[in-house]
Amino acid sequence: MRIVLIGSGNVATHLADAFFERGVQIVQVYSRTVDNARALAQSVGASFTNKLEDILPDADFYIFSVKDDALAEIISQMPATNGVWAHTAGSVPVSVFEGFCDNFGVLYPLQTFSKNRKLNFAEIPVFVEANNAETLRKIGDLATMISRKVQPLSGERRRYLHLAAVFGCNFVNHLYALAAEILEDEQITFDALKPLITETAAKVMELSPHDAQTGPAVRFDEKVIQKHIDMLKDPKTKQIYRLLSEQIYEKHHNPQKTDS
Amino acid sequence: MRIVLIGSGNVATHLADAFFERGVQIVQVYSRTVDNARALAQSVGASFTNKLEDILPDADFYIFSVKDDALAEIISQMPATNGVWAHTAGSVPVSVFEGFCDNFGVLYPLQTFSKNRKLNFAEIPVFVEANNAETLRKIGDLATMISRKVQPLSGERRRYLHLAAVFGCNFVNHLYALAAEILEDEQITFDALKPLITETAAKVMELSPHDAQTGPAVRFDEKVIQKHIDMLKDPKTKQIYRLLSEQIYEKHHNPQKTDS
Repeated sequence: MRIVLIGSGNVATHLADAFFERGVQIVQVYSRTVDNARALAQSVGASFTNKLEDILPDADFYIFSVKDDALAEIISQMPATNGVWAHTAGSVPVSVFEGFCDNFGVLYPLQTFSKNRKLNFAEIPVFVEANNAETLRKIGDLATMISRKVQPLSGERRRYLHLAAVFGCNFVNHLYALAAEILEDEQITFDALKPLITETAAKVMELSPHDAQTGPAVRFDEKVIQKHIDMLKDPKTKQIYRLLSEQIYEKHHNPQKTDS
Repeated sequence: MRIVLIGSGNVATHLADAFFERGVQIVQVYSRTVDNARALAQSVGASFTNKLEDILPDADFYIFSVKDDALAEIISQMPATNGVWAHTAGSVPVSVFEGFCDNFGVLYPLQTFSKNRKLNFAEIPVFVEANNAETLRKIGDLATMISRKVQPLSGERRRYLHLAAVFGCNFVNHLYALAAEILEDEQITFDALKPLITETAAKVMELSPHDAQTGPAVRFDEKVIQKHIDMLKDPKTKQIYRLLSEQIYEKHHNPQKTDS
């Protein structure tokens, strides 16, 4: 199995590490920025290039892990190759490859990847899709080499999964950042909040988020809510506080309403 | 050590369990609703009442765990007692007790408490405050019987800690709820998101939330952001998506700006 990796960002780096650890050969890394291509390639014993025309034609898989906005342009500039082309994006339809190669699909690992954070890839859910059954099997087999949690998912549903992930991860992390800033202004260590953050996440492994809710908004503790809004300085943060509190209240006192 | 517990909600229940397990005697539970008072009292071998005038006068501690909005009124109707009065609220100043008893303070456990969720109280940070040094020592000693993480904190800073906790817990949990609804509409199990939720929380035990951020907003992946907003149905949820994305972007591309 020979893989060409197009991209050198967080997802590409974690994928490269996972393949490397499972003995799957990365033969080449492409990045627009040659230093990034070199650094990632050297860590997994691959060659590297920053020229799309130099991409090797004879690999089994071409994995595209680049910014969504860059993907279509890179695909349109790819040389003809053998093998399967697959991207790793949550919100890009598989049809982005149409007209550029015969066998293509998606290998979407659902996780938050930072370069300086080690992960156990085996536990990361990977969602696969392809333009034909044989290619789906190939991408599924490849994904199974690095993850125990591989399942097919249509592009239509994958983009909703990605949307849910933005709420459950990126936006959650931003709320952690807002909390950290509030504490920093008062010279309280972020450590004070860690058991609460851990328990809040652990809770929804067992209870539904709806049943897990606590705090001033669900109790409709109006005085606290107003005091909190007054304590915040940034108008946008005040608005976020207000909107989230209103929705929490509505959801618990008018449960038939759907908010998604 | 004899404790009277005023309240029978989530915090009161977890405190009662923690004291009971450490052999600290709850002598009486008060709740406005007699069935709630009885249920909690029976689980810890205490007497119960729904009449404030029947509260025992000779306990060592009177712990008030009621809704913030109800606290002042309950205090004003309390009979005279010996012992220390303390509340468990994040955002209520200790002065709420002034004029009603001599020795009073706060015992604020920073955690999200649901009745049907077992917790290890020893790991829960408890922040204490009092109106004099002797009472602070007494409340600190009591808290230390159930938690390994007791520390003094002024009311002024405690309310900011509470505000940060609303962001890091209640609002985070609401984002989990929004994610769950998005998935439900697509018949995707919430389980798909669990490894991501766990890792997002685990990440900020080591990295700062700022450094941990990933996703379309920090990359400023405009197409994805617009697609996501279009996919959401509820206007409030659209607005939440937009505000959080804007703030994430601003914070990473204009880092000197403070948003709290």
